[in-house]
Amino acid sequence: METKIVLKDSEIPKTWYNIVADMPNPPAPVLHPGTGKPITPDDLAPLFPMSLIEQEVASQRFIPIPGEVRKIYALWRPTPMYRAKRLETAIGTRSRIYYKYEGGSPAGSHKPNTSIPQAYYNKMAGRKRIATETGAGQWGSALALGASFFGLEAKVYMVKVSYRQKPYRRMLMEAYGAKVVPSPSEDTKSGRRILEGDPDSPGSLGIAISEAVEDAATREDTSYALGSVLNHVLLHQTVIGVECLEQMKIANDYPDVVIGCCGGGSNLAGIGFPFVRDRIAGSKKTRIVAVEPSSCPTLTKGVYAYDFGDTARLTPLLKMYTLGHDFVPAGIHAGGLRYHGESPLVSQLFHEGLIEAQAFQQTAVFGSALTFARAEGILPAPESSHAIHGAIVEAKKADEEGKEKAILFNLSGHGFFDLAAYDDYLSGRLTDYEHPESKIREALERLPKVSE
Amino acid sequence: METKIVLKDSEIPKTWYNIVADMPNPPAPVLHPGTGKPITPDDLAPLFPMSLIEQEVASQRFIPIPGEVRKIYALWRPTPMYRAKRLETAIGTRSRIYYKYEGGSPAGSHKPNTSIPQAYYNKMAGRKRIATETGAGQWGSALALGASFFGLEAKVYMVKVSYRQKPYRRMLMEAYGAKVVPSPSEDTKSGRRILEGDPDSPGSLGIAISEAVEDAATREDTSYALGSVLNHVLLHQTVIGVECLEQMKIANDYPDVVIGCCGGGSNLAGIGFPFVRDRIAGSKKTRIVAVEPSSCPTLTKGVYAYDFGDTARLTPLLKMYTLGHDFVPAGIHAGGLRYHGESPLVSQLFHEGLIEAQAFQQTAVFGSALTFARAEGILPAPESSHAIHGAIVEAKKADEEGKEKAILFNLSGHGFFDLAAYDDYLSGRLTDYEHPESKIREALERLPKVSE
Repeated sequence: METKIVLKDSEIPKTWYNIVADMPNPPAPVLHPGTGKPITPDDLAPLFPMSLIEQEVASQRFIPIPGEVRKIYALWRPTPMYRAKRLETAIGTRSRIYYKYEGGSPAGSHKPNTSIPQAYYNKMAGRKRIATETGAGQWGSALALGASFFGLEAKVYMVKVSYRQKPYRRMLMEAYGAKVVPSPSEDTKSGRRILEGDPDSPGSLGIAISEAVEDAATREDTSYALGSVLNHVLLHQTVIGVECLEQMKIANDYPDVVIGCCGGGSNLAGIGFPFVRDRIAGSKKTRIVAVEPSSCPTLTKGVYAYDFGDTARLTPLLKMYTLGHDFVPAGIHAGGLRYHGESPLVSQLFHEGLIEAQAFQQTAVFGSALTFARAEGILPAPESSHAIHGAIVEAKKADEEGKEKAILFNLSGHGFFDLAAYDDYLSGRLTDYEHPESKIREALERLPKVSE
Repeated sequence: METKIVLKDSEIPKTWYNIVADMPNPPAPVLHPGTGKPITPDDLAPLFPMSLIEQEVASQRFIPIPGEVRKIYALWRPTPMYRAKRLETAIGTRSRIYYKYEGGSPAGSHKPNTSIPQAYYNKMAGRKRIATETGAGQWGSALALGASFFGLEAKVYMVKVSYRQKPYRRMLMEAYGAKVVPSPSEDTKSGRRILEGDPDSPGSLGIAISEAVEDAATREDTSYALGSVLNHVLLHQTVIGVECLEQMKIANDYPDVVIGCCGGGSNLAGIGFPFVRDRIAGSKKTRIVAVEPSSCPTLTKGVYAYDFGDTARLTPLLKMYTLGHDFVPAGIHAGGLRYHGESPLVSQLFHEGLIEAQAFQQTAVFGSALTFARAEGILPAPESSHAIHGAIVEAKKADEEGKEKAILFNLSGHGFFDLAAYDDYLSGRLTDYEHPESKIREALERLPKVSE
């Protein structure tokens, strides 16, 4: 085959794939934090347009991608799928390694796959503004892009410590026309309350979520938007895997293993769910592997239980793998993977044995990232580099076992905004971190009590 | 047509286009700075492998692209050509605007089109090291990438003020394995001499060139490499325009105007020369437009004369448009366009009326850059934004004249490393600058005396 397989604009998928249609069991219900009863679409109406709520609870297998969204997808989609021949040579494997590259999107990651339809549905529902939170800024810039395309105002509550440390991400959002404030801010009650207690609060994702939710809930013209975890977000990301299925056909191959990094779950789900479908149908035995950082081992060391999506305990209760809603992961460079919980869909599939999980330390991950960059040219984001490392480990294991495997991973973003992390690695300043079991145990003791 | 036209790996051009074969007059000779006589290939042998010297003086129309280079090109080439429909709507034009996007290369610009073959030919010639200079870092990172692919050591002399101001570019080069030193450095005689006189020297491109040339000239295993200006560099960049010719056929269109930004000339030549060929042949009347910054108006306010390529007067004498080798352009954000001279080939074609030139101020350019980013999604590099502005001006002029034109421009790179410049623009801190005529006149009085 050629170095990469490209598809034409006309081959952008016409539907997203909804795994709920094929799961062995229906998704566990989402519970109202006050009543402990399953939430209804009406409960979510102040936050999301009804079209997105319908997708959140949809059970049909294929959901049409609106024409207007496909037109914007065409600015960078279909994305190329590469055969990583130069990487294979560099590590001396007999396995065939493929990667799907999502870093060519205008915002530099897979996130616009969902920010574009989210902005579209909000526009159709007559909303004028979208409020969201962002940590490192990857999601914030994708949403700013989506809002800009549809003439919506975007308000981004950016965790204050990131706002100060990552000015380039803030500037990118502003270049797209978004309003960005450091969180906690003076713009919301939640923010002001925190600032009264601690004017120098560095902020947290939990606080930023509270601010964005309050902003959306208190303004008629405004919705709230999320970049991962929820069903409709994962649904939009399946455009990645659906394209891969076509590209694998052209490559005349099929993966034995599909690998994605895993924080909130949209990255893994995006590339993996269409392959999980074949596995559930029994036509393939492909393993789907979630790779997470050892310092935030949600799937590998967490428990499967109802928990809050945020630290401030404002969200509905989700049945998911969790380290506890007030667990604070170490400050590793892959900021996008520092989440205490996990998408409920990924969690349930993991619980049922249809997805595997592995955890790695960041120095090993950065070592693999550089091997990749020097072989294939692309400088990967630290998050995506977890998938690269997982693929290299998989290939080496196959070599040891005398096997040849087809390995596909999701290279979800580039690392141009993460060069300080590479500098730390090259200068020997990068350290590994594993939380003591006791810290995780303590956080898990504070899980909400739910009678299922 | 579709939003973008993509080609397959197998459609990567098999030859570069050498415009020397079609120019109305042969290129003016390059002169030895000591003797004032035309230089010979042997004069250049200490600096470049003979295969590149042969390309520098070649006269055949098509020069084969080695298979190994085409394989590496396939990591990002062929690059997409877009129909900028969303931009057309945003500015309300009736013209058809197309752009070729080169920012998807691993280093983020068109520069790897020449760094890859340069590294390849050096490898084939048995060289172990390449020395080069870099200002803002765009070329340095492309060369670091090329060297990494062929297992060569890269030594980059980076202008000290940029080394301090643009750490991310330095880190990217190091991630690819290059050795980067701030110039002036202790590693060369030229550097030490400057440091003795001024330990705090901020450096300059002129000094960095001297260091890299000395490094290459004094080490048997080392070559020197340039990122623009020279004939072989422009030759390699024609892969851009050759692809565009194919993509225009698929779009069933042909440009009335082709636009590129212009500093050393490789950007404009890359997209423009294959179209100049059709114009010389008389089959088309396409206008080729070089866009330069008003603060470095080489083509629009310089003279066509023999001059040094560097400030330190070490290079051979080139017949080119120049503002004088010791002219210091204002510190605009488009660092890649701050060059006193111009490629001899572009200069000669401009002199003969086959290329036009326009100059714009940077605030207007950044305004157009943001219009583009919010319509098409891609955040453009400040250099490339000059071409965007030129295209928008061209479209508006056509609208005023009641005409419909097909306009093609080269979007040569992304602006992820230039967000501070966007921040300056959005905060109103960006200013325009035009040098007084007297400053240019003074610099031109110091041109070397050459009897032609």
